[in-house]
Amino acid sequence: MAQTCIKLAAGPRVAYLGPRGTFSEEIALSFYRGVDGEFTPYASIDAVIRAVADGEAAEGIVPVENSLDGSVNITLDTLAHEVDLSIVREIVRPIRHNLLARDDTRHVNVVLSHPQALAQCRQYLRRHYPDAELVAVESTAAAAYQVASGAKHHAAIGSARAAQLYGLKVTATDIQDNPLNSTRFIVLAQGAVRPEGAKVKTSLICQINGEKPGSLHDILGEFARRQVNLTKIESRPARTGLGFYIFFLDAEGSLEEEHVRDAVAAVRAKSLWFKSLGSYPVSVVEPE
Amino acid sequence: MAQTCIKLAAGPRVAYLGPRGTFSEEIALSFYRGVDGEFTPYASIDAVIRAVADGEAAEGIVPVENSLDGSVNITLDTLAHEVDLSIVREIVRPIRHNLLARDDTRHVNVVLSHPQALAQCRQYLRRHYPDAELVAVESTAAAAYQVASGAKHHAAIGSARAAQLYGLKVTATDIQDNPLNSTRFIVLAQGAVRPEGAKVKTSLICQINGEKPGSLHDILGEFARRQVNLTKIESRPARTGLGFYIFFLDAEGSLEEEHVRDAVAAVRAKSLWFKSLGSYPVSVVEPE
Repeated sequence: MAQTCIKLAAGPRVAYLGPRGTFSEEIALSFYRGVDGEFTPYASIDAVIRAVADGEAAEGIVPVENSLDGSVNITLDTLAHEVDLSIVREIVRPIRHNLLARDDTRHVNVVLSHPQALAQCRQYLRRHYPDAELVAVESTAAAAYQVASGAKHHAAIGSARAAQLYGLKVTATDIQDNPLNSTRFIVLAQGAVRPEGAKVKTSLICQINGEKPGSLHDILGEFARRQVNLTKIESRPARTGLGFYIFFLDAEGSLEEEHVRDAVAAVRAKSLWFKSLGSYPVSVVEPE
Repeated sequence: MAQTCIKLAAGPRVAYLGPRGTFSEEIALSFYRGVDGEFTPYASIDAVIRAVADGEAAEGIVPVENSLDGSVNITLDTLAHEVDLSIVREIVRPIRHNLLARDDTRHVNVVLSHPQALAQCRQYLRRHYPDAELVAVESTAAAAYQVASGAKHHAAIGSARAAQLYGLKVTATDIQDNPLNSTRFIVLAQGAVRPEGAKVKTSLICQINGEKPGSLHDILGEFARRQVNLTKIESRPARTGLGFYIFFLDAEGSLEEEHVRDAVAAVRAKSLWFKSLGSYPVSVVEPE
């Protein structure tokens, strides 16, 4: 199936948030289908990003934002403070959560999952398991694994594929609080790409002078006056004290386009600190 | 000690994030010192906020932002989507974390704490306990309680007071990634207050037309042109799909001041959806 081959930006060693059965793995499998590479699960988002920064992997796939629970802070904070990597692709995938339990489970008193999956199913859990203890673990798949090998009164929130991999039963489907639930994943690499495709975005991180009224308004003006649409603005702590922030900005368009490049250059000139995450194509992957 | 009495906005029943030994409890104890009231610990932030919304408590104290780990999403999301409450006070408190263990602990292979406390000590944990499993629980005090009553190889991240309450040993102090670590707590109540004091802030939530380039720039312009400084802007998912956000804005000044009131009225008029969280005084509480 040559038509499903994807040209890799930098090579075939791909790191993703494991263990087997995570949504990140499903993304890797469907996105790189037909590519003869090495796909390595890592135990945490942090570890995936470091593997790329250290050169252990050429590309790393991590979640960056969910439509219900918002940004994945560890992804943003690691990109800002600890590594110098580029985003080479964004992949959006609808996310459906299921409650997974052992065949012999009758009563659930503990529910395990990734903190964002627990948050995405908050209403369902409150309605059906108001007294259950919610336990956050590293990934939805790790939760499935722990339930499969653990106590009978435990259940996990995860994918149908994780249920299959770990021999669990799907006891409820589509338990997320909103049917429109989807997650943005990003593929990270060392060095930027020349993005191709119908939809391209550009991301950057900047710190502005928060003491000066209107600084953020001023920065956003550089985009507005050039008709560059911002798809996202997110503040995170600058880690220098309460009230100091860095801003993650996602803009439509590519740094190869003059109006985007000019806006970004103007923002860089006005920032106390600045980091470009590059321009990259956006794809949508439907569940299998 | 009449001079330490605090006039309560609405009554003496105060809900806070328990169990005993949380930072929220320390805030309640020091802030309401001398007040003859009922102080009730609740098991989750969610439950504290609902207690106020349901009238079970007149005021509720919850964390809203940490200087290292950022906003407490459950607090923001619950205020936006599930209740109609006002902020009647903000309390800023420096936070120092400690590693707590049983007297007989020699080797630590599991570290428990609130997810934000784990995040605030990420560098310390990676350096000293790179192989330890990190387990997120409802609060720093719940972690201390579980370590005191649980396995010998577990440790908790929490306050010195939690160590004392649960009979644990402080094995390392000041383990947060940054000495400037502090947390903003808010006191919630039904109905707004007339804020008094040297420092007053006003908070609001709005949803703007994200499809229109420059919408956020336009909103921020309403503050900038009136010289109203924004101390914080935070986006959270609108929960209607990826790419739709609501914005939490904190401004300096009170709704009783004309320029603030005008800016807020202009933002309300331009918003698809709007919620005022009121104006409130800001206090800083030093650790005992």
